[in-house]
Amino acid sequence: MPDTAPYIIAPAPDAPRLTRAVEGVDHDGQSQSISVVEERPLTIFLNAQEIVTAMTIGDYPEYLALGFLRNQGMLKDGEAVLRVDYDEELETVVVRTGGQTTYEDKLKKKTRTSGCAVGTVFGDMMEGLEGLELPSSEVRTSDLYALAQRINTTPSLYLEAGAIHGTVLCEGPRPLVYMEDVGRHNAVDKIAGWMFSEGVGPEGKMLYTTGRLTSEMVIKTALMGIPVLASRSGFTAWGVEIARQVGLTLIGRMRGQRFICLSGEERLIRDADPASVAPEAKKHRRKSAGDT
Amino acid sequence: MPDTAPYIIAPAPDAPRLTRAVEGVDHDGQSQSISVVEERPLTIFLNAQEIVTAMTIGDYPEYLALGFLRNQGMLKDGEAVLRVDYDEELETVVVRTGGQTTYEDKLKKKTRTSGCAVGTVFGDMMEGLEGLELPSSEVRTSDLYALAQRINTTPSLYLEAGAIHGTVLCEGPRPLVYMEDVGRHNAVDKIAGWMFSEGVGPEGKMLYTTGRLTSEMVIKTALMGIPVLASRSGFTAWGVEIARQVGLTLIGRMRGQRFICLSGEERLIRDADPASVAPEAKKHRRKSAGDT
Repeated sequence: MPDTAPYIIAPAPDAPRLTRAVEGVDHDGQSQSISVVEERPLTIFLNAQEIVTAMTIGDYPEYLALGFLRNQGMLKDGEAVLRVDYDEELETVVVRTGGQTTYEDKLKKKTRTSGCAVGTVFGDMMEGLEGLELPSSEVRTSDLYALAQRINTTPSLYLEAGAIHGTVLCEGPRPLVYMEDVGRHNAVDKIAGWMFSEGVGPEGKMLYTTGRLTSEMVIKTALMGIPVLASRSGFTAWGVEIARQVGLTLIGRMRGQRFICLSGEERLIRDADPASVAPEAKKHRRKSAGDT
Repeated sequence: MPDTAPYIIAPAPDAPRLTRAVEGVDHDGQSQSISVVEERPLTIFLNAQEIVTAMTIGDYPEYLALGFLRNQGMLKDGEAVLRVDYDEELETVVVRTGGQTTYEDKLKKKTRTSGCAVGTVFGDMMEGLEGLELPSSEVRTSDLYALAQRINTTPSLYLEAGAIHGTVLCEGPRPLVYMEDVGRHNAVDKIAGWMFSEGVGPEGKMLYTTGRLTSEMVIKTALMGIPVLASRSGFTAWGVEIARQVGLTLIGRMRGQRFICLSGEERLIRDADPASVAPEAKKHRRKSAGDT
């Protein structure tokens, strides 16, 4: 029986601040009004330190900030967050911690470094993978199929406006938190921020994403302690290599009855007959117009 | 008559260093060997200064470095580049200029800033847009259709392995340089690096990309001085807004006979009947597996 428990957080495709009507002229010279996703800068501060400006649709700025700092290793387990202040007008969010964070120490040593989040900080992320142990877990293929079907038919900004990525935190057959963003990494960071805020652990969880399984996506999932990462998209060779190194179950190209498991296949319990899975309805298929 | 002049640079889907065979197990429990794109770190230095680590497929590292520095405003017009040294083993590329660059001055003033390329440097990129004038230009819809058809059927890493973006520099009906990369921004940067190296100007050129038309993509194109940007994918509200501010012709969702022009429609010359355009062959349609 399909799971019908409500999402804890679901997309809000009708929220007025997330989309805008944009006028254009089509191939036949006809005027068209199109619902288009917003994209706004959000500057994240850790105490007095400006860390990064992310381009985001703008929902859940506090979760995005907390999750970004967590996933970059700038906020450790057990670190006390005193306050998170979002200023809509200034487009800033400030995360205030009790003491000075590790990151501020590091900055002093490398004052001349100006790296991208996938630059300087990337080395630090790889460091965090050493000795990492992901929780043991089982993945039923019946759950995989049920999740994909439910996620793809859930009203979302993607179905409303396209040009956006989605990531969903799942547990067994149930999708818990479904975040969307113009940047696929932001969607994952918002989930990490929610888990940190709510004290939700990674045991028994799975991440489903619409985006590609690149090295950075695999590293983020592993650092979050989540043992399973599935996507409807493709993957890079290094993404697969890292998943194998850390023992993460990696599943790509999930569409209709199809998928390919690239790492951690021992977690799969094949309790569903692929032939019984209905193909994706055309209107729910992600077109590349939307998810590139 | 379709243009059949060869590309100056075309994708090299058979180059051994760009893809790797990866083993997986499919939905039926069958082993599969899949051709997958590589993803490697490349650290870009400007003289003695480490700037960024980009994740890239690894072709044309010199063009990527030059184009990244150009597009971030760290290498100005007329700045003398003495040498570009790529070290495959160290995964670094060092761009050496005659004098100290503007960027190094800026760094001294902001030594405690550690921003992403879309962070700190983003403000600088917006600055460069003030007073920008793009060359006047005409865009024939017959050329648009011919370009899309030719690009989509050109052998590429995308058609071979998926999970990759493409960007093509075009002139009239002719695609000149077709770059691919795991990061859609890298593909654009490699084109900017080629233009800088070869002294090719933006007049009469158009960029075609498989990726979404986000603010950063529009800003890059405008800073490169290219007056027309077209994509088969969607767009964000801010991307459209910036294109209108700078007078850039922005065309999205180009598939088969369809497209939508969101800005700069006065450059379009509608000399083709959309009804005469053949739909895209299924095997050349970009699936979201590939271009998310």
